[in-house]
Amino acid sequence: MEEAIKTVVTTFLSSARGKENLDSKKFQKLVSKQLGGIMEDTDSTSAIREMQRGLDENNDGKVNFQEYLTLIGYLANSFSDRQISQKGGTNADAS
Amino acid sequence: MEEAIKTVVTTFLSSARGKENLDSKKFQKLVSKQLGGIMEDTDSTSAIREMQRGLDENNDGKVNFQEYLTLIGYLANSFSDRQISQKGGTNADAS
Repeated sequence: MEEAIKTVVTTFLSSARGKENLDSKKFQKLVSKQLGGIMEDTDSTSAIREMQRGLDENNDGKVNFQEYLTLIGYLANSFSDRQISQKGGTNADAS
Repeated sequence: MEEAIKTVVTTFLSSARGKENLDSKKFQKLVSKQLGGIMEDTDSTSAIREMQRGLDENNDGKVNFQEYLTLIGYLANSFSDRQISQKGGTNADAS
């Protein structure tokens, strides 16, 4: 699990190349290269631009580490939902 | 990177064993078994209990998936800070 968390971090840092955030070009590249298997429309520049706008809380036109972690959280949530629905839902009532 | 996100999710789901959240015992086990290399005090039951209290936003005495993702975000942030400080900081001013 530690390696998984480190991978999430180093993927951002290597894409940002020493900068604090990703510009649109770097964000497009990260999404299309790294997230094609867990997300849809990663081959669509406009879809990625739309997503970037949704993540850009401070409206600086870039994606900082916190905004990136929001994306990761979103992807983790939708993957978790898919896993749970494939297994026929959680037995939430089984205490 | 996709595998990393999936690992973060499946680690929670396999610990929760079909339930929607982790009780204290399962959370202690997950932290001590999975996070020893990226976090301190994972051998201290009281430190983990303290951390669980800090994560428990809805005060139900358990850790749900969102609270777990908050922990992952916290660990990613501190690992990122360590990486950046080891490399002598980001050239944030280099536009």
